[in-house]
Amino acid sequence: MKVAFIGLGVMGYPMAGHLTKAGHQVCVYNRNSDKALAWQKEYGGDVAITPALAAKGCDIVFACVGNDDDVRQVSLGGDGIFAGLPKGSIFVDHTTASAELAVELSAIADKNGQHFFDAPVSGGQAGAENGVLTVMVGGDEDVFTKIEPVMAAFARFSQIMGPVGSGQLAKMVNQICFVNTVQGLAEGLNFAQKAGLDTDKLLDTIGKGAAGSWQMDNRGKTMCKREFDFGFAVDWVRKDLAIAFEEAEKLGADLTITKQLDGYYQEIQENGGNRWDTSSLISRFKK
Amino acid sequence: MKVAFIGLGVMGYPMAGHLTKAGHQVCVYNRNSDKALAWQKEYGGDVAITPALAAKGCDIVFACVGNDDDVRQVSLGGDGIFAGLPKGSIFVDHTTASAELAVELSAIADKNGQHFFDAPVSGGQAGAENGVLTVMVGGDEDVFTKIEPVMAAFARFSQIMGPVGSGQLAKMVNQICFVNTVQGLAEGLNFAQKAGLDTDKLLDTIGKGAAGSWQMDNRGKTMCKREFDFGFAVDWVRKDLAIAFEEAEKLGADLTITKQLDGYYQEIQENGGNRWDTSSLISRFKK
Repeated sequence: MKVAFIGLGVMGYPMAGHLTKAGHQVCVYNRNSDKALAWQKEYGGDVAITPALAAKGCDIVFACVGNDDDVRQVSLGGDGIFAGLPKGSIFVDHTTASAELAVELSAIADKNGQHFFDAPVSGGQAGAENGVLTVMVGGDEDVFTKIEPVMAAFARFSQIMGPVGSGQLAKMVNQICFVNTVQGLAEGLNFAQKAGLDTDKLLDTIGKGAAGSWQMDNRGKTMCKREFDFGFAVDWVRKDLAIAFEEAEKLGADLTITKQLDGYYQEIQENGGNRWDTSSLISRFKK
Repeated sequence: MKVAFIGLGVMGYPMAGHLTKAGHQVCVYNRNSDKALAWQKEYGGDVAITPALAAKGCDIVFACVGNDDDVRQVSLGGDGIFAGLPKGSIFVDHTTASAELAVELSAIADKNGQHFFDAPVSGGQAGAENGVLTVMVGGDEDVFTKIEPVMAAFARFSQIMGPVGSGQLAKMVNQICFVNTVQGLAEGLNFAQKAGLDTDKLLDTIGKGAAGSWQMDNRGKTMCKREFDFGFAVDWVRKDLAIAFEEAEKLGADLTITKQLDGYYQEIQENGGNRWDTSSLISRFKK
């Protein structure tokens, strides 16, 4: 299949690579062209100098960029994805962005006779590199069957959540849930260390029961060592939470504690921890 | 082996039953003797009229009662466990209580030539009924090898966490971690419902990734239905958290968010939800 991938960040770079390895004809675009050329050297494929040129003649265009504004920049205007994408073709946006943007872009796609899906992912950098991401998709259920087998190149599991925007809403719930779990670990493990417990034994034991979580299994031990170098950065979670807070405002949904945790992440940024991973909530406590 | 079980609540009743089924000679004591007689009718075994008489001639006495005061009541004085327990025998306390109490009772056992273990469990009523509890044990590592195979009658996993008191400290960490995870689910699923997401699909999808947890897998769907009838009650978690807060005070450990969640549980009590399970944090949000 002829596909394009727009945005070769820590997520997009390996995702686009998996598409090549799955046998697709991949053309990439990246704002910084050095990275696109490095990608081409590693995986083969084509490099375009605008998103429109990358999208030209494609069955599917995937994008994974930073935020709403970045998505608009690569989508709209004469150099944007919509300008190049053939009628009947599909634009899949893997960026974590607002549900509002998804609705806006879907309306443009409809008008052009194209299809749009919001499709944020979870699984982080490691998930992208190992091709085992989870994809939460919003859009037309029938057309979804065309993109699912292609996304299988980098995803272990894709789920159509509902109409356009539903993928973004599901991702917001994901972020709300996991940051609260991390705060529990931060308070719990700081307590455990001050109490002199063997935290390795502790995590192996309580991880099997009702306190168990992905975060406990995958971040508990490194939190105890104050190691925060595992990809999903404080800057990024705050971007995602800002989107969730805006949506919650519209929905009248109470996110009191999640907002406090966002405030803690802000403190961590102010202390220079922008690129620490989200488990750094424990860094607020003195050892 | 000749053993006794003191306290036939929702946990102790099936735990003592599993000991009988494993072939041990079990004598039980319960404050309300009707329950002890019902237990005997179901499982056979003996019933004693004081903890001391139950403990007489036993290799191991297990207890699982309400709180520190209840443990003292069944342990101390002429009718208490220590008075009946032979020299060289073992007292295993499965009650979730303070680490301080464990140290206090261990000192008494030492003086008497007996052994004491604090051994709170996790896994709840279902875990007790199915014999798949997790036990967090504090005490002497060598003597632990004598109780581990016996506890296997009702536990899937027992871990010696460290010296006496360590079992209780580990349980406190367990409770701190899980209530924060529940709050994340409460805020996240309330948001999801207000956003009109299909929460079954949502939970099946995000449960596979970095937001996944035991609580999400086992309580997510029932939280969405506002069903709170799954054993571990608000009254009990508040008792456990009170112990953790007292310990945190001594340790200088920050439990800011966990304290706020305790306040939410207090609200739920004030609205009559004492016996709702801990997932009822979502009940604070209007549907």
